[in-house]
Amino acid sequence: NPHLEKMKEDILYHFALGTGTHDFPALFGDVKFVCVGGSPSRMKAFIAYIAEELGLGSPGGDYPNICAGTDRYAMYKVGPVLSVSHGMGIPPISIMSHELIKLLYRAKCSNVTTICIGTSGGIEVVLGKTVIRNTDLDEQLAKEVVLGKTVLRSTNLDEQLAKELMQCGKEIGRFNTVIGNTMCTLDFYEGQGRLDGAICLYNEEEKLRYLKEAYDSGVRNIEMESSVFAAMCNLSGLKGK
Amino acid sequence: NPHLEKMKEDILYHFALGTGTHDFPALFGDVKFVCVGGSPSRMKAFIAYIAEELGLGSPGGDYPNICAGTDRYAMYKVGPVLSVSHGMGIPPISIMSHELIKLLYRAKCSNVTTICIGTSGGIEVVLGKTVIRNTDLDEQLAKEVVLGKTVLRSTNLDEQLAKELMQCGKEIGRFNTVIGNTMCTLDFYEGQGRLDGAICLYNEEEKLRYLKEAYDSGVRNIEMESSVFAAMCNLSGLKGK
Repeated sequence: NPHLEKMKEDILYHFALGTGTHDFPALFGDVKFVCVGGSPSRMKAFIAYIAEELGLGSPGGDYPNICAGTDRYAMYKVGPVLSVSHGMGIPPISIMSHELIKLLYRAKCSNVTTICIGTSGGIEVVLGKTVIRNTDLDEQLAKEVVLGKTVLRSTNLDEQLAKELMQCGKEIGRFNTVIGNTMCTLDFYEGQGRLDGAICLYNEEEKLRYLKEAYDSGVRNIEMESSVFAAMCNLSGLKGK
Repeated sequence: NPHLEKMKEDILYHFALGTGTHDFPALFGDVKFVCVGGSPSRMKAFIAYIAEELGLGSPGGDYPNICAGTDRYAMYKVGPVLSVSHGMGIPPISIMSHELIKLLYRAKCSNVTTICIGTSGGIEVVLGKTVIRNTDLDEQLAKEVVLGKTVLRSTNLDEQLAKELMQCGKEIGRFNTVIGNTMCTLDFYEGQGRLDGAICLYNEEEKLRYLKEAYDSGVRNIEMESSVFAAMCNLSGLKGK
């Protein structure tokens, strides 16, 4: 975005951080991995786990929320790993991604790998299986709306990273891991063919036919954020999965 | 939804409430007004304000979060008023609306009025002005995706309620209030023509042209939740604004 160069101060509103008040290179310059997930408490538990795995655990075991000035998102950091919550669905992960990319840019980070983790619904996938996404399939196409016009953007993710994660899964041996396509929906109930929402104008047979069609086109899980996250990784040159 | 009658237990996953563990009519049967807004802390401040206004303030001034079992949403209640956070954007307000409508149904509530409050960007509207929305204009059309197919749903809201709110605004005299159309976008940055996102592939002139077109079609503010909220109020018979 060429407009960024003209700005005196860049305020990341939804992180409650700004270049005028925070020293981005000092705070974030060493970041090499960004892991994002829906729930703030889960991303806090994740950073505590990562700290322990990397031998960087804090004595009290407490990790301060870098975005404590807002209740929109939570952010934690240990060594080269940043852990950020993104809420549920495309709009909040889109806002988070805009501000995260600007944060990494202002902090002059390089060679950053981003990984989107979280729960998803599996299609004919054994419970507990981990799905590494290959390509994101939006409900119809991977599209965003810019100035009222629909724009199509590629949601292909890094193939090499998928292979590396698959290899990690095999080495750990505790997870049943597959690589598959992910379907990204705008809603949890009607968007995913669930029968237990407040409104449901289809029957079980129609639901199963819909899920079978998705499975036949390579879809192995359904969630609500992947397409825009993938598109923004692609556009901004971040290696993502 | 006819499937709801066949369910032994109805679990509102994202509220951490269920008919098997909570007595919905006892907890929520007297609800007549539901106010929803984005931020959990703002909805807590709102319930404290309402409690004071209604003379129902708690001695300690503290209001427990009914959804404390999850960090997805926060919910507070005082007398007939329920205050619920919905996060940012259409997917989280869609999930919240499904579970809220089921909550009101299971609690056997009747004649419930819902009001969506919150910040929005104004178009040629003086800062601090309150916009009461008339009709929601989605970026292109008010649409939802059900089983992979786009469904168009009406987003007209209750006209009488708009007039009543306008009258309240006049009586209080502290707010500059207008009735106008609301544009609902999927993104805060590119979706609303902002120049300060991580990605921006248009210039200021194109942005201003876009906003002028919106203004000319009656749009007075932009936000990110209204269309689906309006459509779900319509479908479920809730009086909404």
